Order: sequence, then structure tokens, then C-alpha cells
Amino acid sequence: MTQTVKTQVCIIGAGPSGLLLSQLLANAGIDTIVIDRRDRAYIEGRIRAGVLEQGTVTALEEAGVADRLHREGLPHEGFDLAFDGDRHRIDIKALTGKSVTVYGQTEVTKDLFDKRFEEGQVFYFDVPDAKPVDITSDRPKVAFTHDGARVVVECDYIAGCDGFHGVSRQSIPADVLKTFERVYPFGWLGIMVERPPVSHELIYANHARGFALASMRSETRSRYYVQCDLSDDVDEWSDDRFWEELALRLGPDAASKLETGPSFEKSIAPLRSFVAEPMRHGNLFLAGDAAHIVPPTGAKGLNLAVADIRILSRALIAHFRDGDDHHIDTYSETVLRRVWKVERFSWQLSTLMHQFPENSPFEKRMQRAEFDFLSSSEAASRAIAENYVGLPLD
Amino acid sequence: MTQTVKTQVCIIGAGPSGLLLSQLLANAGIDTIVIDRRDRAYIEGRIRAGVLEQGTVTALEEAGVADRLHREGLPHEGFDLAFDGDRHRIDIKALTGKSVTVYGQTEVTKDLFDKRFEEGQVFYFDVPDAKPVDITSDRPKVAFTHDGARVVVECDYIAGCDGFHGVSRQSIPADVLKTFERVYPFGWLGIMVERPPVSHELIYANHARGFALASMRSETRSRYYVQCDLSDDVDEWSDDRFWEELALRLGPDAASKLETGPSFEKSIAPLRSFVAEPMRHGNLFLAGDAAHIVPPTGAKGLNLAVADIRILSRALIAHFRDGDDHHIDTYSETVLRRVWKVERFSWQLSTLMHQFPENSPFEKRMQRAEFDFLSSSEAASRAIAENYVGLPLD
Repeated sequence: MTQTVKTQVCIIGAGPSGLLLSQLLANAGIDTIVIDRRDRAYIEGRIRAGVLEQGTVTALEEAGVADRLHREGLPHEGFDLAFDGDRHRIDIKALTGKSVTVYGQTEVTKDLFDKRFEEGQVFYFDVPDAKPVDITSDRPKVAFTHDGARVVVECDYIAGCDGFHGVSRQSIPADVLKTFERVYPFGWLGIMVERPPVSHELIYANHARGFALASMRSETRSRYYVQCDLSDDVDEWSDDRFWEELALRLGPDAASKLETGPSFEKSIAPLRSFVAEPMRHGNLFLAGDAAHIVPPTGAKGLNLAVADIRILSRALIAHFRDGDDHHIDTYSETVLRRVWKVERFSWQLSTLMHQFPENSPFEKRMQRAEFDFLSSSEAASRAIAENYVGLPLD
Repeated sequence: MTQTVKTQVCIIGAGPSGLLLSQLLANAGIDTIVIDRRDRAYIEGRIRAGVLEQGTVTALEEAGVADRLHREGLPHEGFDLAFDGDRHRIDIKALTGKSVTVYGQTEVTKDLFDKRFEEGQVFYFDVPDAKPVDITSDRPKVAFTHDGARVVVECDYIAGCDGFHGVSRQSIPADVLKTFERVYPFGWLGIMVERPPVSHELIYANHARGFALASMRSETRSRYYVQCDLSDDVDEWSDDRFWEELALRLGPDAASKLETGPSFEKSIAPLRSFVAEPMRHGNLFLAGDAAHIVPPTGAKGLNLAVADIRILSRALIAHFRDGDDHHIDTYSETVLRRVWKVERFSWQLSTLMHQFPENSPFEKRMQRAEFDFLSSSEAASRAIAENYVGLPLD
């Protein structure tokens, strides 16, 4: 027995991308159905990025989910780059007139879920086998099992917001899809701790022993990272070992202010740059991690996904409201132009701030020279700041 | 029979670095002797770079050898970067308030020789075996054979301006000297032709078939380059083949204006980044190519050498005139700080503008994204322009 459901846009993935798209379309009177492999509690439990570009904040305002963000988010007007003990502040406010907001992706997801539930959004959770079909027809479908029953969602468009491991990208034929990848030869060991951050602003440090990042989620909750070997096991990293390594890499000045404590989250993540082209096939669109991954340096992952969604929502609204398909037709090209620039920035900052085992002595000096040039050139600092606060949408 | 000669500074190398140092010191009343492995005609015959930073022009003015340069040099207020047919002009005048001057290194060398001969400078040419000795004593010497006789120059300081293959760097003990190197996996095939340049400004082009550069020495004499394999032989490159390849890489717009003709110089040069540290050992100083090589992209080689000489001449003048050794003692550190920044720029522009056989598809896209970001960001363009017109001396 198959249940058939109709909607205008079927969204695969209830992470921040899918939820934001659903909200922006709902605000424009466009009907969506959202499907996810997991349930709300699981999705909200994922700990991810925490620095929002001004454009991301604008998108959340437009969606109508920015009240708590404005109350609880921490505006940041700069960040520090440190290199072997030398510090250079990128004054993003002075350099660009804009700032960023520290507010966890987990909180963004909660706010979006609250709003979607409040408005009666139809979700299908715990769907293990969603499958886009007929995507090159004008009546694409998503077929899946839910509570033991077969469901088919008939729609005009499918939005693949289901992340790197999702089914959406895999539904594009291999002879159409081109992928580009860089896997970095190290990971990030991250911890979360209920202690005030060591500094009011983020510190990205490149030390001879490896990269370190001092970040935060709030004025009382800190997020710290150290570059580690990909073969490391979390169990090899006691809290004591982590704090010792972090203090060493941040340098004596920061270390003297470091408030340590028991970590309540500890995990190792690999770093990857990845882009899939095109980001549209037939009536299936890809957005966010489904199409691209950035290494976390510079905190672009969520922001890039939100920019995709802003561009996609405008295209869909132009179609449904004005019958204008221009933005639908140019979506992939438009969005990829920006994606590649953001990939470039994330790659550049990652390349600058980490220790690469394969780097020659000359390449190590190039890293140092780039830091020195940045420290001495307002133009070079501004080029970094422009990327940090977010490039224009198109 | 050994002839002993005394001077304050013995300069090894009569290229532009050594000649300029001799001139700047002579202007301050400091006595030098200049030694070279070759003779004047040979040295003047070497064809090298042709774009002078404003600081280089200032140095030549200070030396009193800028009259012809001001008459014949071509001021340039910008240059073009081209990528797969797209062009982006770096308006260096608007971005930095400064310009550069196109004037061949050969001409700079001639002007310096004229002035040194006019003032009666003592030269030893055709010296095959100059050898710095006692360089860590307070009475260093340069010993050599000249016209069959042994000569020893006794001096206070030795200036090693004898290029990459010279004896000066080799005189620093291996356990003191650290070297850093990057050899690029391609060469530049360059030709000189008696035809007006294809464009009033330089065009650096990255094309799928490789790099190309449209440059010039005057309004009637052009200098063109194409990236080639290091294993290529000049004889495999007929003029016809060169012009065809150049036209393809510069693109149809430039190609339609290209005036071809018989080349009167054609050669293949490798590309290398190289730095030796320290740039002072005892009373021996290194300057220019003796201490560092940059790939020619961005035309920094001569300019970097001139900056070294400006810093070195100030240090020597402070010593001899004021008895102040501070600048002598900090020479290596001061000069290397700038050297590394210039190495970074030359490496960055080379990395951006060439086809690297080993580049992954992701890295190729990073090149393109860097060009796109440059094209869209005034700050990023200014950071390039600041380097192109020349970084501050210290």
C-alpha cells in the first residue's frame, strides 16, 4: 500500500539548510515537505560551527527566526591570527564595516525547528531510504518507507539538503557529476567545556607543534581545537593532555588566562575540501554540504549552506510567484561561482594556519612570509576580513 | 709576486648590484674596488628583467644615473592578469599611488658602467678565481689572479654581489649557511623582437596550454615569453611555432593586435625560488642573486637586489661616516625580512599564473577561484599592486 502526498518542494534533510529553505518558502506561501534520516532530537544534538556571517544573520531575520539569536548571540568585530607567538588582529569591523555573530549551529537548528513546528510543517523523520526518482521529468518524486508504509511525495522540485553522505548527490548520474576534492593530512580534535573563553575573540594559531583554535559558544562555554594526527584516537587525549597542548600552542600570553575544566564533548574531525558540479540536475537542486565541504578553518560551512539556500529560495519564489525561471536556470552557475570563492578562502586559511608534514622548509617560510605580509598590509588584511564576514551573495 | 691593494669595500661582481653599491658608496666618499669574472661587454650583453619599482628608480636617482632612464623609460600605471581569456587589470597607480618604469636591466647596467668609468672606478675584469679570505677577521681580503699576476685586495668589508653561481655565498661555511629552495617544473622560453608591443601594458596570462607574458623593452621592442617544458630545446621552437603558441595563450583579442617578426634573441630559462641565510658572515655581505633567486613572474629579481644594496649602502655609510655599526649588525635580519616577503609574492604570482602538471583538479579550481576573487576584490587587487610597485624598504 503506497501513500501518495503532494507538495511544491520536497526537501531532503532537516538540518539548518533544509529547515531554512522550508521556512523561507513557507513565508512566501510555498508548500514543502521535509524528510530526514534521523529525528529532531538527534539533529539538534549535533555540535557544529558557531560563527555566523552578517548575511547569515540577515537570512535568519528574513526567515523570522532571529529573536533569540539577537538576544544571545555574541557580536564579534575581529579575530586574531597567531604565528609562532606573534599575533595579528584582523579588525573586521574597521576593515569591512561588518561584524560576525557567535551563535551555535545547534541553536540555529533549534530556532528553525521551533518555528517550523509552530507553523505546522509536515516532517517525515526516521526515514532510512529516501530516494529521488524521475528527477529529470517535470513531476519528480521522493519515495521512501515511513513507519513501515511506502510513501511517495510528488512535487515540482526536490531540494537536496541532506549533507555530504546524503542520497541527493548520489542521485545525479556519474557521467553528469564532477567532483573536486582535497583531503588534509590531519584532523581537528575539539572539546567543549563549561568555562569562559580565554579571549573575547577567536584566536587561530599556527605553532610549530600544530594548529590551535580558541573559540566559544557563549560567555560561559568555550570550544577549543588542536590539530591532531588522523590516526589519533580520542581516548589517547585525556583532558590534561589536551589542555597542556592547547596552552603550548596558544602561547604563554593566552595560556595564562586559560580556564580549564572537564570537557563535556570531545571528538576528532577530518578536514576536507570538496565540491560537486553541477548543483542542479533536472528538477533536483543541491544545497549546502550535499554539494560541498569546506575545512572548518574560517567557519564557512554553515554560512556557505545558508548562502546557497538564499539563492535557491529566491529562484524558487521567482518560479512559483512570478513564473520567472531565469534564477532556476542559472542556479547552479550562480551558486558555484560563490562556492568556489569560499572554498578558496577556507583552503587558503587552512593552508596558512596548519603544520603540513609534507611542507618543505621553503614552503614553511612561505607560510611565515604570508603571515608577515598580512600583518604589514591593510589591503591583505582586508581581503581576509571580506571573506570572514562573508562575500556578496552574487 | 703578489700585488697588494687596499680599499674600504671590495665588491665581487660588476652586475647592477655591485655597480650600484660602488656608485652609492663613491657618492659618500667611500672607496671600493670591483672585481668580475667577465668583462664589461659581456656583462652589458646579458638580457634580463625590465620593470623597475619606484624605489629602484629612486635608488638610481640617488646614485646619479637616472637621466637616460627618465628620458627613455616607459612609466606603467597598471598591468593585466588574464585567465582562460578573462582579463583583470591591476590599476597599480589608482590602487597605490605609485607606478613602475619599463627600462631594461641592460640599460641600467650601461648607465652605471658609464658613470663608474667616468669617475675612474678601479675594476678588475676577467678574474677567474676571486676568493674571499679571512672573512671573519677585521681585515678580510679577496685574492685572485689578474693578467697572470696574483693580486690581494685588503679591505674592511667584502660585498658579495656575484650572483647565484658566484664564489661569495660558497665562502660561507656549510654549517652556518641555510638554504631554501623551490624549483618549478617548467621553464620560460623568451624572445626579443624589434616590433611594437601588443599592448601598452604587460599581460600575464594563464591559459590551459600554459603561461604567457607580453612584455617590452621600449615602444618598438617587445619581449615575449611562453611557459615551456624544461626538457625543450630552443631549436625546437621556430619563430613561427612561438608566435602561434603565444597568440593562442594571449587569446584572440590580444592576438589580433600582435605584430610578429624575426626574433633576435631566444632562450629558455628555468624558474627557481631560492634564499640563503644569513646574508652576512663576518665581514662578508651577500646582496642580490648571490643570496636569493625569485622566479621572474612579477619582475622582482633586479628590484630585490637594488633594495638589498640600498640597505647595505646605508649600513656601510653609517659605519664609515658616523662610526655607527647598528645597521651593519642588523643587515642580515633587516634585509631577509623583506626578501621573504618578495619571495612570497613571486611564488604566489608564479603559482597563480602557470600550469602545474602535478596540480589536482581541485588545485586548478583554486587557481581560477583566486583569479575570480582578485577580479572582484579591490583589497585583494591592492595587495597584489602593493607588491608589484615594491614593498617599503624596511
